[in-house]
Amino acid sequence: MDVKLVNPFINATINVLETMAFMNVNAGKPYLKMDSMAVGDVSGLLGLTGIANGTIAVTFEEKCILTIVSNMFGETMSELNDEIGDAVGELTNMISGQARRELEGMGKVFKAAIPSVITGKNHSIVHYSEGPKIAIPFNTDDGDFTIEVCFE
Amino acid sequence: MDVKLVNPFINATINVLETMAFMNVNAGKPYLKMDSMAVGDVSGLLGLTGIANGTIAVTFEEKCILTIVSNMFGETMSELNDEIGDAVGELTNMISGQARRELEGMGKVFKAAIPSVITGKNHSIVHYSEGPKIAIPFNTDDGDFTIEVCFE
Repeated sequence: MDVKLVNPFINATINVLETMAFMNVNAGKPYLKMDSMAVGDVSGLLGLTGIANGTIAVTFEEKCILTIVSNMFGETMSELNDEIGDAVGELTNMISGQARRELEGMGKVFKAAIPSVITGKNHSIVHYSEGPKIAIPFNTDDGDFTIEVCFE
Repeated sequence: MDVKLVNPFINATINVLETMAFMNVNAGKPYLKMDSMAVGDVSGLLGLTGIANGTIAVTFEEKCILTIVSNMFGETMSELNDEIGDAVGELTNMISGQARRELEGMGKVFKAAIPSVITGKNHSIVHYSEGPKIAIPFNTDDGDFTIEVCFE
């Protein structure tokens, strides 16, 4: 996988969370996933097609997404409910949209399917592709989340 | 959503499970999902783009997928492990591939992203689209599963 495909997703994630949730997020070093398992409590998942087919997943720990959505809405969210799911769907769309615009500027055009949001304590996600799976860990003052980008 | 988009997924599901797992599956009446929640133990999820953007999800109860994969492999599977995940990814790809071929014959061309498999007891999936979400319940002698098809 062209590593140039990954940076736009990092940039978009930082920008979206700063803009929407006033959060400072720190991107850790991207790593190649060997065990191909994202484990978390809420995930947004979005398929991509185009010069390569792929998928991105944004997987949050409960505490982290509750803080993000509390900041977005300006009210304290204390449980994983439909509003949290809506927000994760919207964040996933926005991260994908900004990343795809940056990629398009590099001549790499992708189309996006529609996002799905998975909720379930400690669910895991495995992407089925021969291609490498790149995970980017993010940390915030209120817990961690991970972006996975996987292309054929 | 054009209801003609749904039948190819029903036909493909029946055909794939009969061919790969020697299972008789009965398709129930498709219904419009109002609560937009598939709840199950293992799901395959695949994004589609093309004349409409969408996603399909295949969500299995544990007992049902264990029987299906036991039949596919010719050995008794007793827990949700990586092999079950691989099989769900493969089944999702095959159902999507056959359905897309039938749709292409109708002049409706879709591209598929790559499948992701979610494992987690009683996880739920919500699709973020303004479009209707059609659920098709399937039953077998060994438990139930659901296909969801959702397009913009």
